[in-house]
Amino acid sequence: MKRVFHFIGTAAEGNAGMKNELGGKGANLAEMARIGIPVPPGFTITAQTCLEFYENDKKMPAGLMDEVFKNLEMVERELGLKLGDAKKPLLVSVRSGARVSMPGMMDTVLNLGLNDETVKGLAEMSGNERFAWDCYRRFIQMFGDVVLNVRPSKEEEDPFEIIIDRKKKEKGITDDTEFAVEDMKELVVEFKKLVKEKTGRDFPTDPKVQLEDAIKAVFDSWNNERAIKYRQINGIPDDWGTAVNVQAMVYGNMGDDSATGVAFTRDPATGEKKFFGEYLTNAQGEDVVAGIRTPQPINKASKTDPSQISLEEAFPEVYNELVDVYQTLEKHYRDMQDMEFTIQKKRLFLLQTRTGKRTGFASVRIAYEMVQEGLITKDEAIKRIDPYGLTQFLAPIFDANDIKKAKSEDRFLAKGLNASPGAATGQVVFFADDAGKYPKSVLVRIETSPEDIGGMNIAQGILTARGGMTSHAAVVARGMGKPCVAGCGELDISYKDRQMKVKGKTIKEGDFISIDGTTGEIYDGQIVVKPSEVVQVFVEKTLKADSAPNAKMFSEILEWADGVRKLGVRTNADTPRDSSVARAFGAEGIGLCRTEHMFFGGDRISAVREMIVSDSVEQRKKALAKLLPMQRSDFEGIFEVMNGLPVIIRLLDPPLHEFLPHTDKEIEELAKDMGIDAGKLKAKVASLKELNPMMGHRGCRLGISYPEITEMQARAIFEAACNVKKKGIDVIPEVMVPLVGHVKEYVNQRGIIEAAAKEIIDREKVELKYMIGTMIEVPRAALTADEIAKEAEFFSFGTNDLTQMTCGFSRDDAGKFLVGYVEKKIYKKDPFASLDQEGVGKLMKIAVDLGKKANAKLEVGICGEHGGDPDSVKFCHRIGMDYVSCSPYRVPLARLAAAQAVLQEK
Amino acid sequence: MKRVFHFIGTAAEGNAGMKNELGGKGANLAEMARIGIPVPPGFTITAQTCLEFYENDKKMPAGLMDEVFKNLEMVERELGLKLGDAKKPLLVSVRSGARVSMPGMMDTVLNLGLNDETVKGLAEMSGNERFAWDCYRRFIQMFGDVVLNVRPSKEEEDPFEIIIDRKKKEKGITDDTEFAVEDMKELVVEFKKLVKEKTGRDFPTDPKVQLEDAIKAVFDSWNNERAIKYRQINGIPDDWGTAVNVQAMVYGNMGDDSATGVAFTRDPATGEKKFFGEYLTNAQGEDVVAGIRTPQPINKASKTDPSQISLEEAFPEVYNELVDVYQTLEKHYRDMQDMEFTIQKKRLFLLQTRTGKRTGFASVRIAYEMVQEGLITKDEAIKRIDPYGLTQFLAPIFDANDIKKAKSEDRFLAKGLNASPGAATGQVVFFADDAGKYPKSVLVRIETSPEDIGGMNIAQGILTARGGMTSHAAVVARGMGKPCVAGCGELDISYKDRQMKVKGKTIKEGDFISIDGTTGEIYDGQIVVKPSEVVQVFVEKTLKADSAPNAKMFSEILEWADGVRKLGVRTNADTPRDSSVARAFGAEGIGLCRTEHMFFGGDRISAVREMIVSDSVEQRKKALAKLLPMQRSDFEGIFEVMNGLPVIIRLLDPPLHEFLPHTDKEIEELAKDMGIDAGKLKAKVASLKELNPMMGHRGCRLGISYPEITEMQARAIFEAACNVKKKGIDVIPEVMVPLVGHVKEYVNQRGIIEAAAKEIIDREKVELKYMIGTMIEVPRAALTADEIAKEAEFFSFGTNDLTQMTCGFSRDDAGKFLVGYVEKKIYKKDPFASLDQEGVGKLMKIAVDLGKKANAKLEVGICGEHGGDPDSVKFCHRIGMDYVSCSPYRVPLARLAAAQAVLQEK
Repeated sequence: MKRVFHFIGTAAEGNAGMKNELGGKGANLAEMARIGIPVPPGFTITAQTCLEFYENDKKMPAGLMDEVFKNLEMVERELGLKLGDAKKPLLVSVRSGARVSMPGMMDTVLNLGLNDETVKGLAEMSGNERFAWDCYRRFIQMFGDVVLNVRPSKEEEDPFEIIIDRKKKEKGITDDTEFAVEDMKELVVEFKKLVKEKTGRDFPTDPKVQLEDAIKAVFDSWNNERAIKYRQINGIPDDWGTAVNVQAMVYGNMGDDSATGVAFTRDPATGEKKFFGEYLTNAQGEDVVAGIRTPQPINKASKTDPSQISLEEAFPEVYNELVDVYQTLEKHYRDMQDMEFTIQKKRLFLLQTRTGKRTGFASVRIAYEMVQEGLITKDEAIKRIDPYGLTQFLAPIFDANDIKKAKSEDRFLAKGLNASPGAATGQVVFFADDAGKYPKSVLVRIETSPEDIGGMNIAQGILTARGGMTSHAAVVARGMGKPCVAGCGELDISYKDRQMKVKGKTIKEGDFISIDGTTGEIYDGQIVVKPSEVVQVFVEKTLKADSAPNAKMFSEILEWADGVRKLGVRTNADTPRDSSVARAFGAEGIGLCRTEHMFFGGDRISAVREMIVSDSVEQRKKALAKLLPMQRSDFEGIFEVMNGLPVIIRLLDPPLHEFLPHTDKEIEELAKDMGIDAGKLKAKVASLKELNPMMGHRGCRLGISYPEITEMQARAIFEAACNVKKKGIDVIPEVMVPLVGHVKEYVNQRGIIEAAAKEIIDREKVELKYMIGTMIEVPRAALTADEIAKEAEFFSFGTNDLTQMTCGFSRDDAGKFLVGYVEKKIYKKDPFASLDQEGVGKLMKIAVDLGKKANAKLEVGICGEHGGDPDSVKFCHRIGMDYVSCSPYRVPLARLAAAQAVLQEK
Repeated sequence: MKRVFHFIGTAAEGNAGMKNELGGKGANLAEMARIGIPVPPGFTITAQTCLEFYENDKKMPAGLMDEVFKNLEMVERELGLKLGDAKKPLLVSVRSGARVSMPGMMDTVLNLGLNDETVKGLAEMSGNERFAWDCYRRFIQMFGDVVLNVRPSKEEEDPFEIIIDRKKKEKGITDDTEFAVEDMKELVVEFKKLVKEKTGRDFPTDPKVQLEDAIKAVFDSWNNERAIKYRQINGIPDDWGTAVNVQAMVYGNMGDDSATGVAFTRDPATGEKKFFGEYLTNAQGEDVVAGIRTPQPINKASKTDPSQISLEEAFPEVYNELVDVYQTLEKHYRDMQDMEFTIQKKRLFLLQTRTGKRTGFASVRIAYEMVQEGLITKDEAIKRIDPYGLTQFLAPIFDANDIKKAKSEDRFLAKGLNASPGAATGQVVFFADDAGKYPKSVLVRIETSPEDIGGMNIAQGILTARGGMTSHAAVVARGMGKPCVAGCGELDISYKDRQMKVKGKTIKEGDFISIDGTTGEIYDGQIVVKPSEVVQVFVEKTLKADSAPNAKMFSEILEWADGVRKLGVRTNADTPRDSSVARAFGAEGIGLCRTEHMFFGGDRISAVREMIVSDSVEQRKKALAKLLPMQRSDFEGIFEVMNGLPVIIRLLDPPLHEFLPHTDKEIEELAKDMGIDAGKLKAKVASLKELNPMMGHRGCRLGISYPEITEMQARAIFEAACNVKKKGIDVIPEVMVPLVGHVKEYVNQRGIIEAAAKEIIDREKVELKYMIGTMIEVPRAALTADEIAKEAEFFSFGTNDLTQMTCGFSRDDAGKFLVGYVEKKIYKKDPFASLDQEGVGKLMKIAVDLGKKANAKLEVGICGEHGGDPDSVKFCHRIGMDYVSCSPYRVPLARLAAAQAVLQEK
């Protein structure tokens, strides 16, 4: 079995397809060599050799070092240098490199090959004695740590650093850079003494021994504690092993004709097709990262200050060579590349190339433009785009310069959770009812509740002190496409004083603040906000697509996605406005229309409360009769907007106490308004109180206790449908029964709905197709999905509640421990944000399989928050669902994710 | 295909094994005839014919009536009577009879064969003209209703009754019995006129036509609305059909030499082997049921009053014949029989026999004594015993005479739920802390909470105004084997005034009341109570088994059951006392020891609270260090009692706020006691408040947030185990992690437990076997049981929580709708009382299968309340569990049910 693959000049034995053998770094080094990119010569020992090493009881496999030295000789020949040669010493780096990047987890040794002889050769070759000795003392320190285990225990200080500190004191200096050559030489002596003391042996002077020991050490580091932990957390198999890259050292710090830098073939922030990067003269790779000196821009075009000296100006020839290189690489890899390069005495070397990380927005633009350039196919583009990148096209944005200004004026206040993207600026109000007081307001609450919906709708944005990514505020804001920063614990809000304290400042009602739901940042005062291009074009229709390149890109990409995806995409919308926004973003129907959100308006809440406090069925029916025309007109509005697309309407879901006030004062006021006894109303409120309302008297349980509620809602739906149909607009109402756990609950409710439908359709003499179905949100419903599917025409997974009940987490309370759970990697992600596929998902799969087997015509969708999460959308595709439904602003994301799901299957 | 099976004399074509063809009634009539019991001759048309009738578009199958008339002739020959004969008319009854009894659901026609001619023959034969005409007018009414559909709609009055009422007014009488013969004749005329009006046809005078129409009508009634509904509710298949029994009429109302009655071969209330029954002279079957006249006892032995005239005295010869009959029947059927008989002119006829219903207690005694008599095998006895009958052997009892006295003195107050059987009498206290104030107290609360445990333990019984069969009070009381009446809504309790109002009486603290947890009845004042024999023998050991026949019976039956069952039976016990009671009842280990119940004592609750309000890990550890020795000594006590039997200890489960007070006043007092700031304590209490505590920060989530709690508990367990082991007593501790949903939660906690175990066992140098396992109570755990089983040594289903989360019911709140659900038969039984096998059970089966497949050594048990429910125990057996665990007083029931499960499988 071949264990070593060299890359020397353009003669490379490996290639980019050999990541499993050579690791990511090794495979790309070989590939670059192969296509003529200048890389320092070297070779890669396969990851399989690492496994052999372990199987062989951590001994080097027989013959390995022979193979290593044979390849080493080829490198020496190529460079005219020799490992251990006193005049022309070859130095090498020994680096780990697994199949996937495990940054910082495993070990590296640089400058290997130095000893008291070769250091002199290096000094001569480089013409820089100090450089050579600095390399030497660094090598001993690094090799001592990594290979010889001369490292501090937890409580100790690094013994090498102790020596350095002592030396600094002796010399009266504070910085390493102030050491003279002689100091370096003394350090080398002391370091070697330290190694002898700690290990009982002399520091190895034979570079071949150094090399063998270093390779062993890298193999060993595959199973160090932190690497094992990292693999566990990230699900990387232990039996992959790591490759080892041995490569000739090159130096960017050999003088002013040397340099080092990083570059991206396109702008990773914006996706713009421009060469982008930075470099430092006379420096090593670490210096760029460490940020001690300010790097310079790579070319004239990206200079922001005339005093900067770009690589293009300082090293014009090398720059041109680098441009060739980057163009070659991008074309070759057909994706944006992130490169590390070193210039040693005006000679360019590439040390690494890999697919560059980018923002979501950039992922969209790069993929789109690469299709235009003919570099990739549309399918490839779809695969590469971060679905969240598309949502960034929808959010209003702060003017970047104004943000800079605010920061410089110390107006940055705090950072919370970026719960719903977009920028909002306005006057602070602490009560939903006050949202209309100012032309533009930002609603600030400790947390929000359903009563606040009206105010949330009016406000520019929402800021809360408590609650996570799936708190009421976050969910509703995302649904509205409204900026929201949630759970900002630094806010000290006093409702009484109508003010909040943060960062030592007191902000009162009426003061301006600005919140950025994309970043979670909060600023004092106003910052200029503008709606996104896409919203201007498709929703506000104030801009033409022709003059809006972002909007054009956005809609074209979604068209490509639509050509691929199999999942339908619907929306969760409760109003004609939401429905119309969702249609603008491509929704193919409404997957969830929550009727209870319609119950909070002025007249309505009164009628609802009257219904709740009723003593008899008759009284209740009377109150419901008041609600009926209002509900009917709500539905008419939505049906008209949806114009022939299916609309799923969910019957009343929340427990009744959500509609009643809870403080004594509020109750007394309400009693007065209603003309009833305050004591009686208090008793009613108390009787409706529940210990665990999430699992209490709600959903279809209400409709079973009070069939007249279901009947009223069914009548409103079918009367509305008939009225709209009579106007010549097609309507497909689908009535959904919530919180079903037992098929008999569903059958009970279906009976009421069917009776109302039949009566009204007969009376109105209208041809109307409709469906009746159920939420699947109680685990029992999923487990008995076969029984339910025999009676229901559709299922819609309510994965918010299904997650709560399957995992036994109350969404309202889990904040206390769920953050810790995700930190401890008990769950990979917050299961309310992204489906817990192994647990909740398993139950969903059971339900889909049972349901479709029992009823081949069954339509299955999802209407929980997860319908707008890309991983969850893909999961829904994989388990054979028919559609997902999500908030209007997530519709584009879902369309793309659904297409990705298809492509990932291939 | 033979459609008609006759029974004439001893010549019967059917037998008791043909219930599927002949229905229960028909099969038993044939069987009785076959063994020489006098039954009026007749024949049965098979249920399959009923199905033919429906397949044939509700037309009589060709040839059926020929077969009917052929059999009818045989009946006529036997009796010397003839259907339609003017002199010697045969009258018949036409009755439905399905495979299982569907009481009152289908139709019956009596006295068929009467017309204007035959009525005269009947008058002559019976020598009683009024009787004949009364039969005739009743026949027209019944036939009119059942066969001719002359019946009122919902809003109408019965048209026949209108005629009768009018006639009464005319005659100036108030009761049917006052009608003269002429009146009857007039009624007949008017009834026939009514039929003509309503149906447009004459009332059929041809008895053969009457017969065919009546048979059709009975077939028809299989699919009447109420029969369909009954079948749906009771899970009876629609394709069983009903048989039709046509039988010669006999009359107990032909004069004083005639009679009718019902009898049981043993006492159905006590099980005593004595002939038991009652009869009425010159009466029909309905009269006994209707209770218009007081029935007389069947024999001299059962007379309670010398003025009574028993059947033995009035009809000595018939009585002797009946004694022969009952003995024959019981021997033949090998079970206690419930018989209906009629004496027509001193001639005995049996009209029905069936296995008699009995109380649970009687089921035990009858089965036991039948084994002694050699009538049945032990296995048969086990199968027949109602497991709840055994629990009745454990409950204290009220003296029956004293109860009578109390009722006569109008001391009956109200009836609640019979939540935990047994009788208690004592002085009322309204606060748990007052339970010790009086020698014998009854704790009366609106509802109870964990803080009340101490007082509940002291009180004789518990009475609550709120809460169902699985409320805290009910569950704890059953666990303690203490009488409890729960959810008695009629109580109007005022804690402030320390009094309650009920039935117009005011009962103050210190007043005596008596509660019967077996019946749910509540009495004013004292009633004499005595402990059951079984408790005196096995628990109190104040009585010898030899002189306690009930105790002997009880323990022998359980020995039989132990010989059969495969499931282990453990107990849920938190104290040495409970553990020792459970062992006396045969528990084979502890399946659930709840550590939190140990946290409420005086010193302990202080330390617990100190732990909760700690600001740092250090403070928390200090408080936990105080708890450790107390927990350790608790465990030592339990380990000693269990003496080598396994003991599962569950780590802390409830949310921390359960240990803190909630009113401002209590918090202030506690803050003072603890020497901390009241504001700080209030803030702590507020921060621990949860919207849905059931799904909040509890179970292993606490142990993950505060690993030091788990560590303290693990140390207490292993130190206790080592200490007890050193005394030479064997110990098998099994540590159980609660509320696991994800395998990583379990692995996290197991790490802490194992570390503590290893350290202590090493330190103490003791050989100790132990196990670590987990509750399966979160649906996600059940769904991923394979992953968990790879890490855990045992599973214990916590079916209380598993039911809550799978069905989405909060046990505390579901009372509001769950009663209605069971009434509407959405769930067959309260899923908290008896496992919801189709839903929760399906999930359990998934978990057992996944778990045992992943880990063949995995031990699987149940420790929810369901472990003490017979149907649930059987289900646990069927899905392959290893043991059930239940409260000590349910252990006997579980042992029996486990044996029944084995026998039912055969």
